[in-house]
Order: sequence, then structure tokens, then C-alpha cells
Amino acid sequence: MATAAEAEAMRRAVALAARGLGHTSPNPVVGCVILDADGRTAGEGWHQGAGGPHAEIHALRAAGERARGGTAVVTLEPCNHTGRTGPCAQALLDAGIARVVYAVADPNDQAAGGAATLAAAGADVESGLLADQAAAGNEAWLASTRLGRPFVLWKYAATLDGRSAAADGTSRWITSAESRADVHRLRAEADAVVVGSGTLRADDPHLAVRGPGGARQPLRVVLDSKGTIAPGARVLDGAAPTLVAVAEDAPAVPPGAEAVRLPRAAAGPGLDIPALLEELYARGVRSVLLEGGPTLAGAFLAARAVDKVVGYLAPVLLGAGTHALADAGITTITQALRLELTDVTRLGPDLRVTAVPAVPAVPAVPAVPVVPVVPEES
Amino acid sequence: MATAAEAEAMRRAVALAARGLGHTSPNPVVGCVILDADGRTAGEGWHQGAGGPHAEIHALRAAGERARGGTAVVTLEPCNHTGRTGPCAQALLDAGIARVVYAVADPNDQAAGGAATLAAAGADVESGLLADQAAAGNEAWLASTRLGRPFVLWKYAATLDGRSAAADGTSRWITSAESRADVHRLRAEADAVVVGSGTLRADDPHLAVRGPGGARQPLRVVLDSKGTIAPGARVLDGAAPTLVAVAEDAPAVPPGAEAVRLPRAAAGPGLDIPALLEELYARGVRSVLLEGGPTLAGAFLAARAVDKVVGYLAPVLLGAGTHALADAGITTITQALRLELTDVTRLGPDLRVTAVPAVPAVPAVPAVPVVPVVPEES
Repeated sequence: MATAAEAEAMRRAVALAARGLGHTSPNPVVGCVILDADGRTAGEGWHQGAGGPHAEIHALRAAGERARGGTAVVTLEPCNHTGRTGPCAQALLDAGIARVVYAVADPNDQAAGGAATLAAAGADVESGLLADQAAAGNEAWLASTRLGRPFVLWKYAATLDGRSAAADGTSRWITSAESRADVHRLRAEADAVVVGSGTLRADDPHLAVRGPGGARQPLRVVLDSKGTIAPGARVLDGAAPTLVAVAEDAPAVPPGAEAVRLPRAAAGPGLDIPALLEELYARGVRSVLLEGGPTLAGAFLAARAVDKVVGYLAPVLLGAGTHALADAGITTITQALRLELTDVTRLGPDLRVTAVPAVPAVPAVPAVPVVPVVPEES
Repeated sequence: MATAAEAEAMRRAVALAARGLGHTSPNPVVGCVILDADGRTAGEGWHQGAGGPHAEIHALRAAGERARGGTAVVTLEPCNHTGRTGPCAQALLDAGIARVVYAVADPNDQAAGGAATLAAAGADVESGLLADQAAAGNEAWLASTRLGRPFVLWKYAATLDGRSAAADGTSRWITSAESRADVHRLRAEADAVVVGSGTLRADDPHLAVRGPGGARQPLRVVLDSKGTIAPGARVLDGAAPTLVAVAEDAPAVPPGAEAVRLPRAAAGPGLDIPALLEELYARGVRSVLLEGGPTLAGAFLAARAVDKVVGYLAPVLLGAGTHALADAGITTITQALRLELTDVTRLGPDLRVTAVPAVPAVPAVPAVPVVPVVPEES
């Protein structure tokens, strides 16, 4: 049974883990707090990026000798596989940690087993503390591990009557500054931001993350089946890496972006969504922010490739104009895509609505795929 | 300065007043609590319907001799005009009430002045206690008095992408049983329920209030400019009164409903909305529940004749189908109708969003119109 100090430390570890969001793929975010033998915080750490030390190693370094006889509180089961500096489970034992409390078991076949190793060596091991909060913090990584493709969050902004632009195409601004700042947060937490060529032509979006200099930028992905992207498109400006996905028979894309050729969708006008996600997964992308527009969102929904929806609803009525969502292959009410609201938050004058499919997506392959955790210092 | 007992009594009076919603037009809802000289509740009452006693009279009857030296706590300024049993201000004085605490001043020229009469006769008079809550409870009446037309609440139900039916027209059910029950509450509180001929043809709605036998029914109003309503329409079934509004040149409507001929709108396909509201106001209607469909809602919004919006948003995506709102005369973003959210409530799986125009409607005539309060027992 975890102590109150351990529960408090786990809350802190979950918060520490969140600092890594957008920086750790293809690894999970992980936070760790080391309590000394008297239950006082001796060290903290979080995984800051693939190739760097795991959270436990940062926290052990900070704790130093105070780790001996202490407790490691960590959001994810410590890994058991040998990297350059050895597995975290062994590092914890080497530091003299007597007890390990973790929130979520590692679903990754190659990395899992840390708990068994620790217990076999005589450590006291407990799992499940604040598991829901820790899992929510690792939502994208856990889902991508289960699904074998990136976790996809579809973000849209609309009026109360479901319009994302007025009849003449104007849309600046439907939502508030608070909502737009929140979208930048979503971008900063995502590995890739995806838009279609319609949005590219209509809005010429930049898709880079605003904020302090040196902010990590998500990969900008443009679905442009016909390869019609303009050389001067803002998305090609070099502020962040850009990938232009074109059909196999499309002409060459302009310089300034990497291109990838994908098969066309079996139905509909665009590219094959599962093929796109497979390509992104192979590039280490574990979370995708789908920004639009309505046609591309419809294609993702038709492919059952949306895992979470975040809608920014402005208290505005238009009565005409572009819809937030176009054809998703739904023709009658029994085919409607049913969601469950998971959060409703007021953002300035607007409302942010978060929902997940009532029936979650299933893995494309029957078994949980093996997804290697990138070892430390690799 | 009102006492804690008086504040508690006013909260009770506001709750009592709400029992009259949907029953008192063209009068306001009013609640009253009589406290005896020791500050204990001696009597309660509320206005139950035009033609019946006002709230103060009910409460004085319940209090009897205990009213002498006591305090009347009432949600609206006591009336000052002479009906069959005399004005409420005089009735309070006759019963020996020493102090009167009311929430909201009577905006009605003919009925106002009760406070002055009470003070002149030596009563201690205080106003403004819980004025916001009391005004919210009388929202429709206060607005209709100010505007000289019925208060209009537009209710819609939609998916998160703003659709009210799927591509094939099916819509049962987008929203939950909880949301649909809430719509029945709105109907029960309204004097009239308004739909257009498109909704009539698509849904053949009944528009009566479900619930215990003998529930008061709102006037069912169908806007049917061409007079095409089918004789077997459910809205003509006699469960509640029905008014069919047709254009001046339309053929006769089927038997079973009263018809009224109205001018056509200067622009657009339907009837003139201000003329409709004038007609309903003349019939004593002070609150209108506008139920749709999208075309009629657009016409009301274009006429700036919507005072409140209640949207039932289901966590559902369709990507195609009927919009919740059609042409409201808005072509570019600067013309967008901006609202302010006043309430957001989870209703089962759905979200109920309440909003009011950021710029409220202005009276059609410059001065506040004189709106007689129907006298007691008249």
C-alpha cells in the first residue's frame, strides 16, 4: 500500500513526465521522484528526449547517495533492456533503491520485465498508483504502441452551427486568442501536424509553434496528392521540417521540402490514410495533430483513424460557409460516429470540447506490435 | 439592509415564482413570502395565472393575522393599480405589513409606483435584494416588456459538426433522452412553440408537452406561407391549440386550426417575422420557443429576433446532412452573429449550451411600451 508521500511523489512524477511531451518520441514520457529512506524527496527527473537518459537515471543522479534504502516513484514500469548504460531496473538496484512504486506497466515486449527483475533482486515493488493519471499523460504513446500507428488527435474550430469559415471564406477570427494559444500547446505536444491541400490553398498556414526561441517544432505534413503546393507556401519556410505527401503519379514537389509518395485512397479523392500513418510511424512519429481541413478530417474519420477530437466552439452563428467536417462516408444516422465527452472547458469566450470515439480504434494487426524503446545515450 | 432571513425568503420567493412559468402571460411570474414580526415564515404565494390573485394576495391569505407588523419579501415591486380587489401595495398596507423587500422594480408604467405608495404610507421599503436571480426568473417577461414583442428562445439540437440530420434525413436520435426531456421543459415554460413548414414536412412534429395529464400546453404556431399543411398533420390533433400563419395570398388552411394571414418577408422566402411576433404579442404571447428548422431560424436571426439560444450538442459526428442553421443573411466573418455563453451543462452524454446575443435586440419603438398587467380576478 503506497504511502501519502508516495502518492504525492507520483503526482509530481506525472507533472514532471508532462514536460517531455512532444520531445520523447518514439519513447514515452516518464517522470521519476526518488524518496530517501525517510520518505523525503531526494531527486527528480524526467525523460527529456530519445537518445538521452531515462527519467530514473536523471533522478538517481540528483539523489546521489540519498537513494540508498530509498524508494523510486516512477510513472512507467522501469525498463529491463540493456542500453549503453544498462537497464533502469539494474541502475535502481545498483543505487540501493529498496522499493519501487510505478503507475503503468510497460506494454512494450522488449522493455517490459523491469518489475520482475526488481522483485527477483529483493526490491519491494508496487504498481498501479495513480495509473489513470499517468496513462492519460502517456495517452499518445500508449495508444500508438497498442495500435501500431501514430495516435491521431483531430482539432477543429467552429461556430456553434458547425462552420469554420463564412460564406466568402473569411475566418479570422472565429475563435478567441485563448483558443488559438491552446492550439499552439497542442502543436507543441505533437510529433507531427497534418493538413490537406485545401487548407493549404485557403489559409496558407505556417503550422510552426510560436513561443520562446528554440522551441522544438513538430514535423509539418502536407497531404498534397497532386503535388500542387506553391513554392512560396509558408509551410516551406524552413522554420520547421516539412514533409509533403504526394500520390505516386504526382509531379515533383518544389524544393524546400522532403516528399514522400503514397498510394491513393481506394475510395475518395485523396491519399491512403493508413499508408500515411505507416510512413509517419516509421519516421518515429507517435502523435499526430490533424488540423484540417474538413475533407481531410472526413477521410481520417472514414478510415477510423481519429483517436481523440478537440473542438474549439466559438459562441458565434454564421448560417452559411465552410463546414468543420465534410464527407466521412456517413449517410444515415445509424452510421453516425458516436463519441464520449471527456472534458469541457471554457477558454475565454469559447468552449473547448474533448471527446473520444465511443468504440476505440482497433490495431491494424492482431497482436500488439513490438515497439523498441530507444535506449539511453543511443 | 436586508437580514439573512429576508435573503433566504427571497431565494424561496424566486423558486416559488418559477412555478408560474408558462402560466402567467401576459403577466410576469412573481413569488412572495410573508415573514411575521419575529422574522419567521408566515405565508407563501406565487402568481398562478393571469386573472387569478397576485402572489402577494396568496401569501397574505396564507399568513392571516401573522402578517401584522411583518415583512413582505417579493420578487417584483408590488403593483399599484386598482383591479377588482385593489392594488397589492394597498393590500399589504391593509394587512399591517411594516416592511416590504422586493427584488426587481416593475418596468410597467401602469403598474409601477407600488414602492412609492408603500413608503408614503409609512412602510419600510427596500429594493434590489437578489435582483439578478429574480430578473433571470422573469427573463422573458422583462425582455418582452422592454422590446414590445415576445421574448424568443431559439432551441436547436446538433452534432458537434453542426448537423441536425444525416444525409438521408434521418435524425432519431441525435441527442439523448435527457436532452429531449429538457426540451419538453422549455416547451412547458413557453407561451408558444414555433416551427416552419420544412420541419413540419420533414418531421411531422407534435409539439405538445408530455407529462402529467392536464399540463398546460403552449400555443403551437406553424409558419406555412403557402398554406400547404396536410390535414392529417399531428400538430392539428387538438392536443393543444394551433395557429397556422399563412401568407396573405395563400389558400385556406385545413380545418382544425386557426389561421392568421401575414405579409411576406421583404427578403427571403417566408413570412415577415416582426409581423408574426406582433400578432403573437397581441394574443398575449410573451415567450416563444423557436424550434426550427434551419431556414426559419435563419430568418429569425436575420431579423435580429432571437434573444437567447439553447443548443443541445450531441457528441456525434456526421460530416454530411442538414445544418442546424441555414441562411441568416451573413456572408462574411465581420457580420457573424456573436453571442456570449451564459451556461454550459452536461445532460447525460450531451452538452447543453446557452448563449445570448453579445449585442441585445433593441425595442422596435423608441419608448418602452405600456404593457398592462392583467388585474386580479379580472
